[in-house]
Amino acid sequence: MTSGGAPHEAGADRPASGLAPVRVALLGCGNVGGALAELLSTQAEAIAERSGVRFELAGVAVHDLSRPRPAAVPSTLLTDDPKELVERPGVDVVVELIGGVDPARTLVEAALRAGRPVITGNKALMAEAGAELARLAADHGVDLLYEASVAGAIPVIRPLRESLAGERVERVMGIVNGTTNYILTRMGDDGMDYAEALAEAQRLGLAERDPTADVEGHDAAAKAAILAGLAFGSDLLGTDVPREGITAVRAVDVAFADRLGYVVKLLAVAELVDGGPDISVRVHPAMVPRSHPLASVRGAFNAVFVEGAGAGELMLYGRGAGGEPTASAVLGDLIDAARNLRGGAHAPAPRRRTTVIHPPAELRSAFYLSLDVVDQPGVLAAVATVFGDHGVSIRVMEQVGLGSEARLIFLTHSAREGDVQATIADLHQLDAVDRVGGVLRVVGDDAEE
Amino acid sequence: MTSGGAPHEAGADRPASGLAPVRVALLGCGNVGGALAELLSTQAEAIAERSGVRFELAGVAVHDLSRPRPAAVPSTLLTDDPKELVERPGVDVVVELIGGVDPARTLVEAALRAGRPVITGNKALMAEAGAELARLAADHGVDLLYEASVAGAIPVIRPLRESLAGERVERVMGIVNGTTNYILTRMGDDGMDYAEALAEAQRLGLAERDPTADVEGHDAAAKAAILAGLAFGSDLLGTDVPREGITAVRAVDVAFADRLGYVVKLLAVAELVDGGPDISVRVHPAMVPRSHPLASVRGAFNAVFVEGAGAGELMLYGRGAGGEPTASAVLGDLIDAARNLRGGAHAPAPRRRTTVIHPPAELRSAFYLSLDVVDQPGVLAAVATVFGDHGVSIRVMEQVGLGSEARLIFLTHSAREGDVQATIADLHQLDAVDRVGGVLRVVGDDAEE
Repeated sequence: MTSGGAPHEAGADRPASGLAPVRVALLGCGNVGGALAELLSTQAEAIAERSGVRFELAGVAVHDLSRPRPAAVPSTLLTDDPKELVERPGVDVVVELIGGVDPARTLVEAALRAGRPVITGNKALMAEAGAELARLAADHGVDLLYEASVAGAIPVIRPLRESLAGERVERVMGIVNGTTNYILTRMGDDGMDYAEALAEAQRLGLAERDPTADVEGHDAAAKAAILAGLAFGSDLLGTDVPREGITAVRAVDVAFADRLGYVVKLLAVAELVDGGPDISVRVHPAMVPRSHPLASVRGAFNAVFVEGAGAGELMLYGRGAGGEPTASAVLGDLIDAARNLRGGAHAPAPRRRTTVIHPPAELRSAFYLSLDVVDQPGVLAAVATVFGDHGVSIRVMEQVGLGSEARLIFLTHSAREGDVQATIADLHQLDAVDRVGGVLRVVGDDAEE
Repeated sequence: MTSGGAPHEAGADRPASGLAPVRVALLGCGNVGGALAELLSTQAEAIAERSGVRFELAGVAVHDLSRPRPAAVPSTLLTDDPKELVERPGVDVVVELIGGVDPARTLVEAALRAGRPVITGNKALMAEAGAELARLAADHGVDLLYEASVAGAIPVIRPLRESLAGERVERVMGIVNGTTNYILTRMGDDGMDYAEALAEAQRLGLAERDPTADVEGHDAAAKAAILAGLAFGSDLLGTDVPREGITAVRAVDVAFADRLGYVVKLLAVAELVDGGPDISVRVHPAMVPRSHPLASVRGAFNAVFVEGAGAGELMLYGRGAGGEPTASAVLGDLIDAARNLRGGAHAPAPRRRTTVIHPPAELRSAFYLSLDVVDQPGVLAAVATVFGDHGVSIRVMEQVGLGSEARLIFLTHSAREGDVQATIADLHQLDAVDRVGGVLRVVGDDAEE
């Protein structure tokens, strides 16, 4: 560290040209792993110039040695023994991009125990074992970084962990699944029904052949658990998160939402209930006012909306998936870990606490409901009585004729979810009600009192 | 660092309860300084629990000792000698919230020379002396953090410096001035003209009595220089940034933009030209397509939109001003600096290079122009000939009658700015043209080829 008069362009920890490269063990060489290997190879000079860190691939563990790989991954680097690679002498950092809980968990644990920082993009792993892995990393004084596990390229984890470290976060609401957001966007823009929009997403490679993990909200629930861990220190697993997918959302509901000034989004929500310490974590489709920043998140994009006591409303927006965007997030973490290695520091571990999850029935929200009823006198009165009996107050009602049937559409004032569920159960008992469909929560300040 | 079996809730650097507090010298106790002092006092326990750091105010330097201060600032902490406070034994970190270049610069330099990390929210200082101060900080191995200097509470500096450290950033476009965004939003929503909207902003305390710094783009230019330094390592000063304010934007232009599917925003832009290394940095009003994420940034909110080679499009959105939001950003930096102090690390200094600014005349963009002309035959032909002579191709033309006059409104295809300026100069020479007004660049992929 010199303060001499010679002109110099960089800070004390730069440039890196003279420094030993940081040797990276890469586990998995799919979409993201391949893009990362390409980046580290073709952009090596530029990365060193920009970040002060030079990386070198020490090895790449793959399942199938015979499959063709990108040019940046010569066959001499390949191995099908990830455990050996993780513990190989000379490896500085381990990047886990295999996905799934097993064997990723064992490998990450081995790396941390060997005192090696781990970067992972594995939401399933972090949702299932994030708290324990963070503890293991802290015990061994090394980094466990996972920016790529939520919302791809978007800086979400680091802002929550660092920029907002002193902030009292009150709510996090994310559009964290690009597949479902694409489907809902097409339903809204083009009046497609769910099946059509899903088929279109599958044609474009935005949805899997078996779309269950996306459309039933499992993927979003894993990310909700990770976000809740960061924002509130909760120790929830992804499988603990109550979730509702988008398969029951109909084109008519989306169109009606549009008429009322709302768009339908699948939200991952983590929030303090009544100021805490209880929290609510959940995934469900919701009607979002068109003026809300989340409403402008379209197609396969993702965004995380944060409300803090001091910071107010923040939103972080960008590409939530894809090889290159996700590899970019991994690279940011890699540079962080490499700088910390050099400085002997490591990233702060999130604090953890046992979380009390608020019973969903006790949550309050405005609701949208649609009922198909026999079109005869007295039906509305009967229906309205059921709402009234449960203390659910109606803000907007609209009736649409459907031949001998009618569709009644309701927007309620803020109500206890348990009361709304009881209302729905009783509505099912009415002879005149054929079907209760399209139940959606309404979020945004205008709608909730 | 124990790996023993006892249950524990926190990482190796936590909890803080047993640790010595980090002593903060606060320079300035206005809006933001007062909010920070309140936060550090009333939220001390919560901050320690969340971040693992305990803070204590060592002293607060103010200009006027007799003015009333918030309860969190007892008079025993006050001093009117900031230089003494900065160098006082026992101070760990200096927070500079005085604003302006002098005497802030001298004080920040003194703090860095004394080996004390500095947090500043001072955009004028960072725009004028950021590169030199960063070098000084690096030479002394301490942090210089300035998240609060651009876009208030929004995490912008840290994502650019850390999350995107390895990313090839291609363009940064920010709505970084809440006053002008409020004015433009009111003009768009309510058809107000500029003077009315400005008066409204002044009534609400969103604009100064002398609004020059905001409406002429000086404030945005300072922030553009800071963003360019982070994204491209440029050594530009705020005063180097070509700027155009919003005083010439008329209600008719905003209304016409709306009809074409655009909103008018004041943008701070820093971008690579033709892949670099030249960059363009500038501030000007622009027409943004309604489908662009920046279009949804309304009222006094700010946002920074980043395009990267790997990450794709990112946007960071939130409150750009106000005591509490800005204090929240300062607090995030304070925690960062405190953790680095403890670990002996410091934040990476941005790399710096001498920047070649691309001549604005060479930039290409689509343009919106409006002309007031005498309503007589042959005028359009004469006008169109001038466009053609300079190779500026017209995409949309619309004529609006105004009594004996007519208004011609043009949207061009992408054109060299120099050619458009030459076109405008020649149009002024035509007898039939009374006035050339409302010249706006059009951004967004749909409009530019």
